[in-house]
Amino acid sequence: MADMLDTLEQTIRARRGADPSTSYVAKLIHRGRAKIAQKLGEEATETVIAAIQDDREELTKEAADLVFHLIVLLADAGLSLDDVRAELARREGMSGLEEKASRAD
Amino acid sequence: MADMLDTLEQTIRARRGADPSTSYVAKLIHRGRAKIAQKLGEEATETVIAAIQDDREELTKEAADLVFHLIVLLADAGLSLDDVRAELARREGMSGLEEKASRAD
Amino acid sequence: MADMLDTLEQTIRARRGADPSTSYVAKLIHRGRAKIAQKLGEEATETVIAAIQDDREELTKEAADLVFHLIVLLADAGLSLDDVRAELARREGMSGLEEKASRAD
Amino acid sequence: MADMLDTLEQTIRARRGADPSTSYVAKLIHRGRAKIAQKLGEEATETVIAAIQDDREELTKEAADLVFHLIVLLADAGLSLDDVRAELARREGMSGLEEKASRAD
Repeated sequence: MADMLDTLEQTIRARRGADPSTSYVAKLIHRGRAKIAQKLGEEATETVIAAIQDDREELTKEAADLVFHLIVLLADAGLSLDDVRAELARREGMSGLEEKASRAD
Repeated sequence: MADMLDTLEQTIRARRGADPSTSYVAKLIHRGRAKIAQKLGEEATETVIAAIQDDREELTKEAADLVFHLIVLLADAGLSLDDVRAELARREGMSGLEEKASRAD
Repeated sequence: MADMLDTLEQTIRARRGADPSTSYVAKLIHRGRAKIAQKLGEEATETVIAAIQDDREELTKEAADLVFHLIVLLADAGLSLDDVRAELARREGMSGLEEKASRAD
Repeated sequence: MADMLDTLEQTIRARRGADPSTSYVAKLIHRGRAKIAQKLGEEATETVIAAIQDDREELTKEAADLVFHLIVLLADAGLSLDDVRAELARREGMSGLEEKASRAD
């Protein structure tokens, strides 16, 4: 079964050139990088709020919105989920996921 | 080939109960929901900045950090990437990705 | 001359109980704490974007939006700008502004 | 009595050229616009979390951090709180605070 995230990414890429009056993706990309980034920031705030409120249904929806807008932002920059997967795999290879443990936070 | 995102999610889940002094995931979860949500917000801001600066290498890294912390946040709430995939598939089925087009933004 | 920020705060407080159909402040407070916090997060993202784009006119407008929503959020929590001023004065007294220098970031 | 916010702004402006190893303001400005904006985004997220948790003491502290970093960001862009006050006064004059009521949100 194809990964739903890849299916979504393909749909987003296919709609980039669609009519902005009928496609949300086309409209968003037409409005430019700053607008897409702004939407990503908004969805992240809504994800944070749902998480603090411990509202699992809302958190699932906001996480879906966040992932959707992340894929649009990546596509607008000529990047894909596979680039993100490669970065995550690279870290895993480096011993990886724990590399961040050394960071101050 | 297993999806790197699922591999990451399994690793995160496996490390939840690890020693916080050696595992970043365990440390983060030990500090609680608010701290995880705060980190997600920080990574979202860094993703926004990299996108506006049009720095593709940095954007890839920040997107990886954002996805990583989103999976930790979902796990802490008893949710998974599959719940997010199901939400995205539900929307797709509803005619889907364009449903948001009707939203004011 | 009265500080414009205090004038704004008084106006916001006076409008809290107004008709949500004619007052933005009343509408926002009627929608609840989470909605006000969400708007604050949105304005912060827009402030970040304007700062990175080095658009001084836009940065001034977004900073004004951010301050406006911060005052609404404080008012909703029973707090005021004077509480924030007192906190800043307390830090100044403690040797103050540099106290954060010792924090990791 | 001088406004604490103006006192803070004067202190921030005076420290811009200080030694980054001893002044938090100088260190932050030395690290550049993106780093200052990133800190603003972080403080906004922490303000949102404190507001949702209804923790008034924490909200006061995070609001102080947010205002502090906003003043640093404005100073780095050659702007001041007075520019923000002028923008807020301009809106008030235009019938003002309610102008946003006409915006979609």
